[in-house]
Amino acid sequence: MQLKASFRNDYSEGAHPRLLQALVQASAEQNAGYGLDRHSARAAGLIVARCGQPQAQVHFLVGGTQTNLLAISAFLRPHEAVIAVESGHVATHETGAIEATGHKVLVTPHVDGKLTPDGVRTLLAANTSEHMVKPRLVYVSNTTELGTIYSKAELQALRALCDAHGLLFFLDGARIGSALTAAGNDLTLADIAALTHAFYIGGTKNGALLGEALVVVDPALQADLRYLIKQRGAMLAKGMVVGAQFEALFEDDLFFELGAHANAMAQRLQAGLKAAGTALLIESPSNQVFPVLTHAQIDGLVQVTAFERWGPYSETHAVIRFVTSWATRPEAVDALLTAIKNLVR
Amino acid sequence: MQLKASFRNDYSEGAHPRLLQALVQASAEQNAGYGLDRHSARAAGLIVARCGQPQAQVHFLVGGTQTNLLAISAFLRPHEAVIAVESGHVATHETGAIEATGHKVLVTPHVDGKLTPDGVRTLLAANTSEHMVKPRLVYVSNTTELGTIYSKAELQALRALCDAHGLLFFLDGARIGSALTAAGNDLTLADIAALTHAFYIGGTKNGALLGEALVVVDPALQADLRYLIKQRGAMLAKGMVVGAQFEALFEDDLFFELGAHANAMAQRLQAGLKAAGTALLIESPSNQVFPVLTHAQIDGLVQVTAFERWGPYSETHAVIRFVTSWATRPEAVDALLTAIKNLVR
Amino acid sequence: MQLKASFRNDYSEGAHPRLLQALVQASAEQNAGYGLDRHSARAAGLIVARCGQPQAQVHFLVGGTQTNLLAISAFLRPHEAVIAVESGHVATHETGAIEATGHKVLVTPHVDGKLTPDGVRTLLAANTSEHMVKPRLVYVSNTTELGTIYSKAELQALRALCDAHGLLFFLDGARIGSALTAAGNDLTLADIAALTHAFYIGGTKNGALLGEALVVVDPALQADLRYLIKQRGAMLAKGMVVGAQFEALFEDDLFFELGAHANAMAQRLQAGLKAAGTALLIESPSNQVFPVLTHAQIDGLVQVTAFERWGPYSETHAVIRFVTSWATRPEAVDALLTAIKNLVR
Amino acid sequence: MQLKASFRNDYSEGAHPRLLQALVQASAEQNAGYGLDRHSARAAGLIVARCGQPQAQVHFLVGGTQTNLLAISAFLRPHEAVIAVESGHVATHETGAIEATGHKVLVTPHVDGKLTPDGVRTLLAANTSEHMVKPRLVYVSNTTELGTIYSKAELQALRALCDAHGLLFFLDGARIGSALTAAGNDLTLADIAALTHAFYIGGTKNGALLGEALVVVDPALQADLRYLIKQRGAMLAKGMVVGAQFEALFEDDLFFELGAHANAMAQRLQAGLKAAGTALLIESPSNQVFPVLTHAQIDGLVQVTAFERWGPYSETHAVIRFVTSWATRPEAVDALLTAIKNLVR
Repeated sequence: MQLKASFRNDYSEGAHPRLLQALVQASAEQNAGYGLDRHSARAAGLIVARCGQPQAQVHFLVGGTQTNLLAISAFLRPHEAVIAVESGHVATHETGAIEATGHKVLVTPHVDGKLTPDGVRTLLAANTSEHMVKPRLVYVSNTTELGTIYSKAELQALRALCDAHGLLFFLDGARIGSALTAAGNDLTLADIAALTHAFYIGGTKNGALLGEALVVVDPALQADLRYLIKQRGAMLAKGMVVGAQFEALFEDDLFFELGAHANAMAQRLQAGLKAAGTALLIESPSNQVFPVLTHAQIDGLVQVTAFERWGPYSETHAVIRFVTSWATRPEAVDALLTAIKNLVR
Repeated sequence: MQLKASFRNDYSEGAHPRLLQALVQASAEQNAGYGLDRHSARAAGLIVARCGQPQAQVHFLVGGTQTNLLAISAFLRPHEAVIAVESGHVATHETGAIEATGHKVLVTPHVDGKLTPDGVRTLLAANTSEHMVKPRLVYVSNTTELGTIYSKAELQALRALCDAHGLLFFLDGARIGSALTAAGNDLTLADIAALTHAFYIGGTKNGALLGEALVVVDPALQADLRYLIKQRGAMLAKGMVVGAQFEALFEDDLFFELGAHANAMAQRLQAGLKAAGTALLIESPSNQVFPVLTHAQIDGLVQVTAFERWGPYSETHAVIRFVTSWATRPEAVDALLTAIKNLVR
Repeated sequence: MQLKASFRNDYSEGAHPRLLQALVQASAEQNAGYGLDRHSARAAGLIVARCGQPQAQVHFLVGGTQTNLLAISAFLRPHEAVIAVESGHVATHETGAIEATGHKVLVTPHVDGKLTPDGVRTLLAANTSEHMVKPRLVYVSNTTELGTIYSKAELQALRALCDAHGLLFFLDGARIGSALTAAGNDLTLADIAALTHAFYIGGTKNGALLGEALVVVDPALQADLRYLIKQRGAMLAKGMVVGAQFEALFEDDLFFELGAHANAMAQRLQAGLKAAGTALLIESPSNQVFPVLTHAQIDGLVQVTAFERWGPYSETHAVIRFVTSWATRPEAVDALLTAIKNLVR
Repeated sequence: MQLKASFRNDYSEGAHPRLLQALVQASAEQNAGYGLDRHSARAAGLIVARCGQPQAQVHFLVGGTQTNLLAISAFLRPHEAVIAVESGHVATHETGAIEATGHKVLVTPHVDGKLTPDGVRTLLAANTSEHMVKPRLVYVSNTTELGTIYSKAELQALRALCDAHGLLFFLDGARIGSALTAAGNDLTLADIAALTHAFYIGGTKNGALLGEALVVVDPALQADLRYLIKQRGAMLAKGMVVGAQFEALFEDDLFFELGAHANAMAQRLQAGLKAAGTALLIESPSNQVFPVLTHAQIDGLVQVTAFERWGPYSETHAVIRFVTSWATRPEAVDALLTAIKNLVR
């Protein structure tokens, strides 16, 4: 029996009703163009206040790949390179967007999806002369591609290493709403802002139709960013479309409530899977769950709902990924669990 | 007295209510990501049908600069260049977005905002060896930066020249809704599709929150465009945001009705200005109007409403630009005319 | 009767015998690679001493286009643009090399081949917001494309304007050997170094097989240039090939003697042309001469020697270009003059 | 005791006397510029004849990195990527030159320095949608970075795989002179030409002052390459500098004689090392030798001659690299062996 709900990703649904309402309201006004509208200004102010970094700049962009390529190409000189884990989004799932701006992405193996200081050190040790690129920006994402989260201590260690080697620290927060509300998280938005030179807050995967908020904490990186945004085709004529949504997300705790809800749904699913005896690739604290199933079970599950095939696990088993969102309902999770129990029994 | 309405541009307001309604409805569904949703598919089908080119591909993008840079960099080899008029949007108002993808924009003077075959021939004659770039793509916009429109005969002449010299013909339709409904227009969407290798249909300036529909007519230019869209950060995770709006624009004649309304408001304004004895830089048939005023009059007008300063005209006079949109009301035009009459009397 | 000598350009002949001798000697040694050899070091020292800027860095590159693109792309951020005259080498004769590194070249008309402060001001006034590129580097060449030279006062005025607007001043010295030894020149190499942020000294057109010496005067522009040289494919494994030639050029006054000789030959030619009643496009003080001839005379001249057709002049006349070099012999000039007198009589 | 000879690389010496002589002769002539001279034409003809591919184009360039970036960026569309081994020159030792032209280099582990069909297949399997780059060009070098050589069967297998998947096959021949004359080699230049879409013949490391000959075998890749060469700053004004040297290399068997000599010297060294009981990282058939020595031995050797430190081997040992060239004398090898025997005893 086909379930109604897909678990393929956290961008299947549109926007939370309060964001839609804000958008409809702003749509009826006349607003200044190119992100200079009152909604974008207010949303930026709310975010800066949450970050506790009054000098920070906020720029509203449309999507994650766009934000990554914009920031990285704005911050680096041509010979400077990014450090990321092999599974990093910029390394594998952005169609070479970073390279298309001229920069190499140096990669190192991940540990539970995360970049480690040792990984950074290995790349620094291997790139030491003008015949190689110059490592300059450390890229992490929180949550990671495996749904895991960084601890405060882990980010502090990476930042200390960056400071010791003149590296910039950039955090991709496409799923930061899920990260900051995950079980075991000990970071706040203010911590992230204090520990990075720049990062972004993902709206697309946390209740918005589209939109990411790039927060540039370090004043040395702020000059002329609006030129670069325009040049990359990333400046919306009607910037209020993103501004009004972020205003709604941050004028109270909605942004965090949506992340917490997605996590709760994923944990309900993960707990149910464990109870049913299903193995997991990794214990995820956030809104992505990675069960290990037999090929036959996966083939059966395809008839029931939508999900991603993550990769091979063994001769007989493979990993799939379920993702929950701000819009996932508990009944949908329970229906999925029932369907899986029928398949794995 | 300050008027409520701004005449600065055609992207001050948000989206037409029917587009908002379509968006709210689609937002409540689960849709496939990355532009592979049902709304984008249906909207593409509606556009292809209007174009009468069944082999055409449609890709939904976010804004004009993004669409121009995406298409041009996808179509050209590194040494190939664009031909445009000096006032062309790609030449002057996109922060070097085309150059940032590696391509030179060769420019020639415009005639009433338009590119002429003689202009193209001059550039072809000046770029003839491997020490110069190779002209390869002719860029025009309709309406032009001066609000003028191309006739069918003019586009036919340019296309014939392109064919004779192995050039691609690309039309920027950021304001094509206004162009195709302007007084004196003799072109249809199907004509545009038949006469170009690729063009785009602007939604942002014609009733949408955001969104442009790139129509790639020539099959030789269609390969792998989704790779390039992703690489440039131009692929929306929730592609239905643009798809649903274009569906609403093209499931009946709404797209053209909105363009016609904007034009009617501008013509009402232009007629009133002429009646008041105000000189015009150019007689515009579309939604942009270019009065010539004294510096004192312009300073006075700043107190009344918002508009663009277009450029100097003489020692004593300058040109300004008023733009109307799908949302401009006749009362607002009349109030502006009254205000101007008070200033110029 | 076909003359033996071509007057097409100043890179027809190879290298001056003393440079060849230096090269043959260095070839028999073992030298460190990648420009870290003793000859490059000594040549750099000789150049720095002549420039009187002890903090200057010297990098040896292969050709003019390579040097221009290397320096400009190293010095600019992605949204920053070059200012040049319409006839500037970077604007017209480098196949879009600057654009291929992502940067726009803004152009303004020349006056006798030269960029004027007014030209710069016009471009600054036209590029004032993030919707346009940001002018950042002023490019001039000395001699210009018309063989004219800048005076000290002209360069001072341009530099003052650069300082007032935060612009970098870069001088293309592909023909600086000819410029600094031209009649009427009041500049020294030290003046050029003092007045620019960076410039280059052309070897290819002044007695070397190949090679340009990029002098980066401003310490703020010096960081990591060897990375960028390597990245652009501009780092010679056997860097001594250029270093040894520049050593020979600058260990005494040979560089200037070669420029002076080329100029003397051109002046002998120009004086002869004037005596014969031939009109000139411009009175050139350097090694390029631009006679205006009838089409029939030009067709006749094609049978006699090689030269460039420069462009149309009138219905009946066109401009051609003769170029002399360090290797041009007076007898060849005289033979050419005789041939022309036969044609124009 | 310090030896006179360095074994650091094969570009310490300049050019073979016959090349210098050719260069001095050509230098005394007037030649057409930009590679259109008679020497370049004749050299290209000699190479095409050796390759047995009459339709092949030959372009003379300056260095390996320049040739790699020129060819790869000319052949690929923006989203297309290179496949190489992790140790490939384009992947690690060109300062991100390929990425600077916008293209990602996908890497896979090497087997004895070589790319295997399985390595290619792994990357093809991992890059299958528009969210990832599109693998398009397979890059190998012969000899490899470890001095090993490809067999005819190995290249045939890679080419068959390329044909099956629509991939281009490009061979970096910076050391092809050594490869084609190595013990065990079963390939000719004609084989290489028949098995690749394009490749280059390295002059810099085989007897020339500078210069690589890019051979573009596939007519589909030949269009407009001179534009691209000029745009990348890779077109020599005095193209005869490279042309005359390649003429001397290929008018008889000199090119192969020089490679064979370098190999003979390396084999003499390798045999001596083995006789002395020194371990080798790999048994090399070509002009690079990779002994494994203790840290103390390496420190001692630094006093004696120049070489590269290749990398760690164990707690106590590391790998170094000796390289011989066309100019290495047997006495220098013997002196080095004596010195090493003293150290390792």
